[in-house]
Amino acid sequence: MSKVEKLKQLAFKEKGFDAFLITDQINMLYLSGFPGAACLLLHRNGDDMLYVYNVNYERAKEEVKDFHVVLVKRSEDLMKEVASCITNLRIGKVAVDVLSYENYRSLADSLRSRAMLKMQGKLLWELRKVKDKAEIELMRKAGELTSKGIKTAYETIRPGVREYEVAAEIEYAMRKCGSCGTAFDTIVASGSRSAFPHGGCTDREIQEGDLVVVDVGAVYRYYRSDMTRTVVAGRPSEKQQKIFEIVREAQARAYEAVMAEVTAKYLDGIARKIIEDAGYGKFYVHGLGHGVGLEVHEPPTLNQESNDKLVVGNVVTIEPGIYLPGFGGVRIEDTVLVQKGKAEKLTKGPYVLHTQL
Amino acid sequence: MSKVEKLKQLAFKEKGFDAFLITDQINMLYLSGFPGAACLLLHRNGDDMLYVYNVNYERAKEEVKDFHVVLVKRSEDLMKEVASCITNLRIGKVAVDVLSYENYRSLADSLRSRAMLKMQGKLLWELRKVKDKAEIELMRKAGELTSKGIKTAYETIRPGVREYEVAAEIEYAMRKCGSCGTAFDTIVASGSRSAFPHGGCTDREIQEGDLVVVDVGAVYRYYRSDMTRTVVAGRPSEKQQKIFEIVREAQARAYEAVMAEVTAKYLDGIARKIIEDAGYGKFYVHGLGHGVGLEVHEPPTLNQESNDKLVVGNVVTIEPGIYLPGFGGVRIEDTVLVQKGKAEKLTKGPYVLHTQL
Repeated sequence: MSKVEKLKQLAFKEKGFDAFLITDQINMLYLSGFPGAACLLLHRNGDDMLYVYNVNYERAKEEVKDFHVVLVKRSEDLMKEVASCITNLRIGKVAVDVLSYENYRSLADSLRSRAMLKMQGKLLWELRKVKDKAEIELMRKAGELTSKGIKTAYETIRPGVREYEVAAEIEYAMRKCGSCGTAFDTIVASGSRSAFPHGGCTDREIQEGDLVVVDVGAVYRYYRSDMTRTVVAGRPSEKQQKIFEIVREAQARAYEAVMAEVTAKYLDGIARKIIEDAGYGKFYVHGLGHGVGLEVHEPPTLNQESNDKLVVGNVVTIEPGIYLPGFGGVRIEDTVLVQKGKAEKLTKGPYVLHTQL
Repeated sequence: MSKVEKLKQLAFKEKGFDAFLITDQINMLYLSGFPGAACLLLHRNGDDMLYVYNVNYERAKEEVKDFHVVLVKRSEDLMKEVASCITNLRIGKVAVDVLSYENYRSLADSLRSRAMLKMQGKLLWELRKVKDKAEIELMRKAGELTSKGIKTAYETIRPGVREYEVAAEIEYAMRKCGSCGTAFDTIVASGSRSAFPHGGCTDREIQEGDLVVVDVGAVYRYYRSDMTRTVVAGRPSEKQQKIFEIVREAQARAYEAVMAEVTAKYLDGIARKIIEDAGYGKFYVHGLGHGVGLEVHEPPTLNQESNDKLVVGNVVTIEPGIYLPGFGGVRIEDTVLVQKGKAEKLTKGPYVLHTQL
């Protein structure tokens, strides 16, 4: 079944909706493969319509095969256009993925109670969080490219180099091998800034003995990857090495437990207990990980508040960390594919703290 | 006046609101300078509160000076937290920048009519579209970095090179000079794909005689830039040169007319008339340009549907184009700063069609 057929099965057959309005850019990309649509209206009994503005119309006509491409003019109000289509087709129950409050009001007002709207964004996530074979191939490739980026980080980081210079080399290495930009803003956070989990990337010069957290992701045909390594510019101190070993152990044990049917809360607990037992629990200030796909943060969510249970085809990050304010931080992260047996690492790289291998 | 004071003046003094809830990431960055907040609540009579999750709490405590930083737990419902704060402070009229329909319902339900919510996102745009001196300095720097990227495009494009390889060199050149990533996905669209205004960047090998549209933007301290040049890999044909000259003329005349008090519609009309008079009107499938700042597409909008009038401090793109399906396209774009007199070009580069200067 195609992705659209699966969504129709869920929304129309199982939930009784007559149409599904998709407005989120990534949801549209997921269902249509086309990156520049204005909205998508799936219909139980009729044509599925992809609305496209003039600027992307020629490209859509050439690339979009499975939908009726409808030209929208900038002078037209998109929500009114959709409302008049829903009214003309006598559609009763409309599922919607996401809408701003203002667009919801505009659509509902134009429909004047002739159709019922209901937010059903979770159905899209049900589909998107289980990757199919073709998606997994793209994510493997994104993982390979990301691993090349991390390799470059190990080769580049040394005292005297600036954080953004390291990012430049990492991104260039990934890009030259075919990465389509970056999955998120590259983090190269050194010294005490490495204690900020989202420490960004500044023009700071890396100093001898700094902890440097490098968090990077490549993109391959819209699919993303996510990987972190922490390295010391020079010889690690005993305390740096100790924290590293704790995080390394937490990451390794959590990864070994990743498997279909395991709960997110259980997995998070494995890494958390190791860090807590070592006395650093309050310095582990985030969850174990998150899903990755067309977006870098997707369901399922791996933390203590999550009710998610892993299934075959989930792709998630495993990324515990310890962050000591004023001292620095350590995080180790891989993107992994959930399978029946042992999970497959999509990102691969050494787990070493020093740059001189 | 600081940005927050200006917003308070508009929302509280002029419009009579008691509080302003900001949830958009970029609006929060604009007002606070901090890139990782959960939401911001400005209050007429009290402390302004920046809500931050644990993962960014230490960084916020260190970097945020003008707001009371409030830690939110992942287990808490952010909208309920905000509602209880609004209720406790006996706030009556709350302006909101943006909310999804679902968050709006959650907030309104928690407030149970004890406060009135009104969407006022346009007030933020009123501020954001007029850049102050400090913002203009950052945008000048972003423009310089972008111009280096385009210079690299001219040096790199030749038959046999792949589109993404050109993008790799452009992005590397900008990054090494201090760009913080890219303002948007770099476009290197060659051959017939150059006829798609948003043609992306594929692994296609550039052929002798191809039109290549290169659309690129650097980022400097969160401020973006946007620039396009079109080049031919080799010697341009007569038809390529002719289309180029028309677009060049349209871009130059529109740029010369950019000035405070001029309407967006008038500016768009200048470029459009030149292209229409040359017989290519129906192949100019988008507007003249858009505002640029913390986002790459902002108000004001320069097209025939726009009611915007330019004011000193606007930063806009001027980017007419002609796109001939199956043949290829030409677009020329600069980012310019609106002043009382002649506009200042923030992006600078030659207007030539061939790569051998």
